Amino acid sequence: METNDRRNFLKKAAIAGASVAAMPVVSACANSTQRGGSGHPLKTDESIASTLIVPKKAGLQISGTFLDEISHDIPHQNWGEKEWDLDFRYMKSIGIDTVIMIRSGYRKFITYPSGYLLEKGCYMPSVDLVDMYLRLAAKYDMKFYFGLYDSGKYWDTGDLSYEIEHNKYVIDEVWKKYGEKYKSFAGWYISGEISRKTKGVINAFYSMGKQCKDVSNGLPTFISPWIDGKKAVMAAGGQLSKADSVSVQEHEKEWGEIFDGIKGAVDACAFQDGHIDYDELDAFFEVNKKLADKYGLQCWTNAETFDRDMPIRFLPIKFDKLRMKLEAAKRAGYDKAITFEFSHFMSPQSAYLQAGYLYDRYKEYFEIK
Amino acid sequence: METNDRRNFLKKAAIAGASVAAMPVVSACANSTQRGGSGHPLKTDESIASTLIVPKKAGLQISGTFLDEISHDIPHQNWGEKEWDLDFRYMKSIGIDTVIMIRSGYRKFITYPSGYLLEKGCYMPSVDLVDMYLRLAAKYDMKFYFGLYDSGKYWDTGDLSYEIEHNKYVIDEVWKKYGEKYKSFAGWYISGEISRKTKGVINAFYSMGKQCKDVSNGLPTFISPWIDGKKAVMAAGGQLSKADSVSVQEHEKEWGEIFDGIKGAVDACAFQDGHIDYDELDAFFEVNKKLADKYGLQCWTNAETFDRDMPIRFLPIKFDKLRMKLEAAKRAGYDKAITFEFSHFMSPQSAYLQAGYLYDRYKEYFEIK
Amino acid sequence: METNDRRNFLKKAAIAGASVAAMPVVSACANSTQRGGSGHPLKTDESIASTLIVPKKAGLQISGTFLDEISHDIPHQNWGEKEWDLDFRYMKSIGIDTVIMIRSGYRKFITYPSGYLLEKGCYMPSVDLVDMYLRLAAKYDMKFYFGLYDSGKYWDTGDLSYEIEHNKYVIDEVWKKYGEKYKSFAGWYISGEISRKTKGVINAFYSMGKQCKDVSNGLPTFISPWIDGKKAVMAAGGQLSKADSVSVQEHEKEWGEIFDGIKGAVDACAFQDGHIDYDELDAFFEVNKKLADKYGLQCWTNAETFDRDMPIRFLPIKFDKLRMKLEAAKRAGYDKAITFEFSHFMSPQSAYLQAGYLYDRYKEYFEIK
Repeated sequence: METNDRRNFLKKAAIAGASVAAMPVVSACANSTQRGGSGHPLKTDESIASTLIVPKKAGLQISGTFLDEISHDIPHQNWGEKEWDLDFRYMKSIGIDTVIMIRSGYRKFITYPSGYLLEKGCYMPSVDLVDMYLRLAAKYDMKFYFGLYDSGKYWDTGDLSYEIEHNKYVIDEVWKKYGEKYKSFAGWYISGEISRKTKGVINAFYSMGKQCKDVSNGLPTFISPWIDGKKAVMAAGGQLSKADSVSVQEHEKEWGEIFDGIKGAVDACAFQDGHIDYDELDAFFEVNKKLADKYGLQCWTNAETFDRDMPIRFLPIKFDKLRMKLEAAKRAGYDKAITFEFSHFMSPQSAYLQAGYLYDRYKEYFEIK
Repeated sequence: METNDRRNFLKKAAIAGASVAAMPVVSACANSTQRGGSGHPLKTDESIASTLIVPKKAGLQISGTFLDEISHDIPHQNWGEKEWDLDFRYMKSIGIDTVIMIRSGYRKFITYPSGYLLEKGCYMPSVDLVDMYLRLAAKYDMKFYFGLYDSGKYWDTGDLSYEIEHNKYVIDEVWKKYGEKYKSFAGWYISGEISRKTKGVINAFYSMGKQCKDVSNGLPTFISPWIDGKKAVMAAGGQLSKADSVSVQEHEKEWGEIFDGIKGAVDACAFQDGHIDYDELDAFFEVNKKLADKYGLQCWTNAETFDRDMPIRFLPIKFDKLRMKLEAAKRAGYDKAITFEFSHFMSPQSAYLQAGYLYDRYKEYFEIK
Repeated sequence: METNDRRNFLKKAAIAGASVAAMPVVSACANSTQRGGSGHPLKTDESIASTLIVPKKAGLQISGTFLDEISHDIPHQNWGEKEWDLDFRYMKSIGIDTVIMIRSGYRKFITYPSGYLLEKGCYMPSVDLVDMYLRLAAKYDMKFYFGLYDSGKYWDTGDLSYEIEHNKYVIDEVWKKYGEKYKSFAGWYISGEISRKTKGVINAFYSMGKQCKDVSNGLPTFISPWIDGKKAVMAAGGQLSKADSVSVQEHEKEWGEIFDGIKGAVDACAFQDGHIDYDELDAFFEVNKKLADKYGLQCWTNAETFDRDMPIRFLPIKFDKLRMKLEAAKRAGYDKAITFEFSHFMSPQSAYLQAGYLYDRYKEYFEIK
């Protein structure tokens, strides 16, 4: 209890003299919660605890997170290396051992000085994010997964062959540049986001996954598709949901065919959990697990920590929604939970202050000290 | 003056010795305004005051706030009980004596472990918000109003009969579970948001209000409808305003009929003040007051503290807009001002830092120390 | 290293006694980055620096900023004078010497108690922003530009004659009220935002610019139009880009005619840099500079510090995007860079915490201590 600690400190200080000045200062800031506006004298009473009326630790704990390289729809936080360093420690302290860079580039914005992609007209980044993430992963003994390049052509045309072509070069380049250098390079994320079985998806996933594994002595690969549920709508549009969503049966049929085609080249599938409703979770998760088992894939969940139900797209999710999704994943026997993503939506450092409180609620629920 | 105070403190500390460490630390944090980014050494000069060129205290002071239970369109802050406890103190310190839980549930998300609603398929909440709010209201000597359940069916179908049916059970259950236990249970909010006279609205408001009063020995009830003005548009849509808004005359006619039908079962009406333009306030407020007087209702204003005019929906309102609305309410002789809502849009603790500054501007204008 | 420093401090404190309490406290807050949520004990390691892989200082440094008077599409921060005072110091510390109030009013919201505009039905502001900004500019030895009034009629009708008519009175009034009093009154911003040559634009810009100069003994004037590029879409709408954007050739032709018609009355043109894509910057900037030189205008850039590519409109821009725009401006030989705008999108005080980190990245790149 914070209050008691401080009281004890003050007692000791009275005895010990001057040598203890810095200690209580930090906690004074920590619990002052004085943010917007100036000079508000009130403080939280650290003796107060929340009373949970649900069983604790009934969900699957998150052990991985995407790192958003920020070129798509999540506003940039403009962190420097010291903020990233701190964030890796925040991740680590709640049990995250895996970080996944969501993509190495999107259209012309790229995350490392790729000779190949710069040649193609991409923009030079001011920081080599891949190198930085690999160093931080090594420093904190975490696994780094590299997300492939996304040229945007698939989004524009529905044709995945451009992505295969570009990534032929990117995979080789990246493995030579970083894979052979950093032990923390632990796997590959095949970043093409896909919802249904469409033309070329099986071939694309298979050939990209195969190349990743071949070049890297069999490092694991995974995909993170979305379920074509009712919340599968554009972030920038005016809609929160749509009428024509996929049924569990169609989902099972289409993904059965995909899994059958990609097995051997893809080791895990982490469906995004935010496009379906909370009372649909069990039905879809059960099918996902059944399919994964049948075709020998690991079954992960991509537990979204942002809220798809709000007009501001996107801010951190309500804790109970995250809890229900993690509980469904545990009930379905999933192998691992990762999230999109920690640094904006769960980090005490996030520009969205709701994220730090989500972190608190999460720790409370999982009894993480 | 902060700067001088600190300088004086240092002088005194040099003389007095070590026992004073914690005090100035808090103010050092308070006025450092070091938020985004690291290590900015500049600080506000606390000797500077704003110069107001309008008369102070010419508005009706806010004495009540909704508590948003977060299931609709306001992103969750993920606070635990200690943050709620602090927020009640912030409310109290600017004169708020009434808290109104906006609804006890919306569709499948509910605020307390309702046997009836869980049976219907609603999700179990991790915290009993009703119990927590009632405890905090008791602790700080505030009045708690309970907002009825909203199944969402009215929004989907235009038919209010579902809401009457569900709330028959909810009202009884809640009164037994909390009303008889907590003195702070002080009234009911009939949460159906309505803008015009539509099929069944009079019957619904009357029967729900009547049941609330009957079960609770006549505790007060109120409604908070919206005026069908030009800003009455969907939060998630791309529009900020619409062409076909209600005229003052239509508004008066329709609401005269509604008030006539609900009198006796509803004690106060708090129209939302954000759907009309600032130069329409007087005309609508005058009619609202006239109607309330005629039918024996109290006339409250629901002063929205979020801004409807911005592309981000929603962030805290510009102080001058709030001021104009509260001044119009005072000119019209309104009985009470409540707001939607303090914790996101006016609290120094809010994730939206503009809220804390709105709190400062509000205190400055109402000369609250 | 912060940690060591503090440890050393504690050692020294034990030796030296009590008189040093306040110093390390401020840094404890500064680098604690404990924002969302309570009591997170981790801190940034201040010994870590980012590694930039691009040449530093290759961009044009920002030396001016708009001040948004908040009546249009940027949510209000509700700052009092002491926060504005601090913000001017933050601006100054990165080399900003010019502040431009973007408009003196928009529709019924105005920034100073204008006899003329109040008469026309505008709302009385609670603070005289013009007076405050002029005082702060004087205090910090900065230049203040006054932005003309925008009645909104041009946006509704496409006809600029209303703006000319209103501003006839506003320009005279403002010069008498403030221009003759404050040395910091250093110029005029002709606030009508225009993208293409449309009916009346040349006449409007010319006559308003001429009047500004005539009344003020020739103080400089400038405009800040937008390029009708693919991101020229409504902030509140669902679209991020459009198909029918202007070509460089059309842009050159239309703006050649406009510059020819306004020369002598307008001293500088600061095209907004956010409506075109990053690989179009050089082509448009080259034409802008050529036109400005030909017609004797100064060529400024309005470097937008908010991100037009995100579904939340608007949050601070990714640093690399800002960098690319400032580098393009330097390559094109532009005369000055101003930004829209510092206080929301670059200030360590901003409600958007990403802004403070943008400030850090900006200082790092320009090697500002």
